[in-house]
Amino acid sequence: VSCMRNIAITLCFDGRRYHGWQCQQNAMTVQQRLEEAIESLTSERVRLTACSRTDAGVHANMFVCNFRTRCTIPTQKLPFALNAKLDGDISVLQAREANAAFNSRFDCVGKEYVYRILNRTFRDPFLCGRAWHYPYGLDIWAMRRAADFIPGRRDFSAFMAQGSSVKTTVRDVKYIEVKKDGDMVDIYVCADGFLYNMVRIITGTLVWAGRGKIAPEYVGDIISAGKRELAGPTAPPDGLYLNRVFYDKLPEKAEISFCED
Amino acid sequence: VSCMRNIAITLCFDGRRYHGWQCQQNAMTVQQRLEEAIESLTSERVRLTACSRTDAGVHANMFVCNFRTRCTIPTQKLPFALNAKLDGDISVLQAREANAAFNSRFDCVGKEYVYRILNRTFRDPFLCGRAWHYPYGLDIWAMRRAADFIPGRRDFSAFMAQGSSVKTTVRDVKYIEVKKDGDMVDIYVCADGFLYNMVRIITGTLVWAGRGKIAPEYVGDIISAGKRELAGPTAPPDGLYLNRVFYDKLPEKAEISFCED
Repeated sequence: VSCMRNIAITLCFDGRRYHGWQCQQNAMTVQQRLEEAIESLTSERVRLTACSRTDAGVHANMFVCNFRTRCTIPTQKLPFALNAKLDGDISVLQAREANAAFNSRFDCVGKEYVYRILNRTFRDPFLCGRAWHYPYGLDIWAMRRAADFIPGRRDFSAFMAQGSSVKTTVRDVKYIEVKKDGDMVDIYVCADGFLYNMVRIITGTLVWAGRGKIAPEYVGDIISAGKRELAGPTAPPDGLYLNRVFYDKLPEKAEISFCED
Repeated sequence: VSCMRNIAITLCFDGRRYHGWQCQQNAMTVQQRLEEAIESLTSERVRLTACSRTDAGVHANMFVCNFRTRCTIPTQKLPFALNAKLDGDISVLQAREANAAFNSRFDCVGKEYVYRILNRTFRDPFLCGRAWHYPYGLDIWAMRRAADFIPGRRDFSAFMAQGSSVKTTVRDVKYIEVKKDGDMVDIYVCADGFLYNMVRIITGTLVWAGRGKIAPEYVGDIISAGKRELAGPTAPPDGLYLNRVFYDKLPEKAEISFCED
């Protein structure tokens, strides 16, 4: 009898060509591509469990998923074998054997997103689909003051797309940081979990503050009122990256050798 | 009678979707897209003159071209109007009125290319088509010692694609610099002009030196012998960027305001 392994995979992807992570009929998704690649290697049907869904056009600098398999391919060879079967806009960085109970969705204890804004007059062809090109002046300090009203464990209904349904709209936002480097304004948001479109609505709201359309303090009122219509617009998917996902139960990252010799 | 203007345009582009700069039958090129955009604005047929040809899949951080027109659109409005007609992987950064005799091809006094190598085990989805993914260890100092044998005014036949024909194979290479930043190895080459595939063959040769396949000093012998077959392989187009083009005769860049208000 062969042994069942629970394999955790870390990958990153450019989401431009994909209709998000999750399998859908008649649309190419990252999950579908990765399941096909695994099936062609293992000759087993697999269903991936994942840290997160992502929307169409959203990217991931780090994404974790897992699956169970009886295949005997050595775990450390899986990234090479999978990358050979995937297109260049998906890259498998690591495969680890997790304990039998590990679940990449339910064991995820936190996530960090980054939303990237290109803030200059003319667009950058190398950031096409990878940042929100916003050509109007932004007051970065007003954005930072507005962001300071967000962290904490509270009801974030105001930052959830209308029509979504969830058990609870309470989330614990650990931090928000608005970084500026040259023409780039990058908004980092870390929480135990996120509501639908939450980072994109937070971004639209902070941009409103940066344009002077709302006072920074008003962000506190928006959250208290819990009304989506008071918050800013939903920023486009282009600038959104799942940046890091956190687990308590995964084995430490194996050291990746810098280069093969 | 309306006045004829000679307009110089500075742009940048991601070359992945294009068969290079120059117009070709049955293939999409950057020149064709830009001429179409100009024609739809000016209602005049135009033919662009350009600083350079580029190969399929090659990129430009800076590219200059010019055309003559009787249209009366204010020069400083042209970048906005053209960008609105072009896809997001081309960005017009500036339009200037040059003197009547200015020719972006013949007045170009120098060019700088950069060749980008991603030197790590696993590929980066955000550099797909934008860098050469080279997963084997490179001795950066061997590459730098090898590069030191290249600058100067000399016959560079050894670094020209076989079958090309030019009046002279003498070029003046001003400098080569091999920079390393994290996983990226970037090779900067500046010269008064370049032979066909010259930067890509230089890159292939420096990578040979970095792998220890040839001694750095041997690069001097390759140039002296003038034999293409002694040099390294032609690196793929993905990593090549026209980075800067130099003119004596163009008006200084106008100050571009950081953001519109």
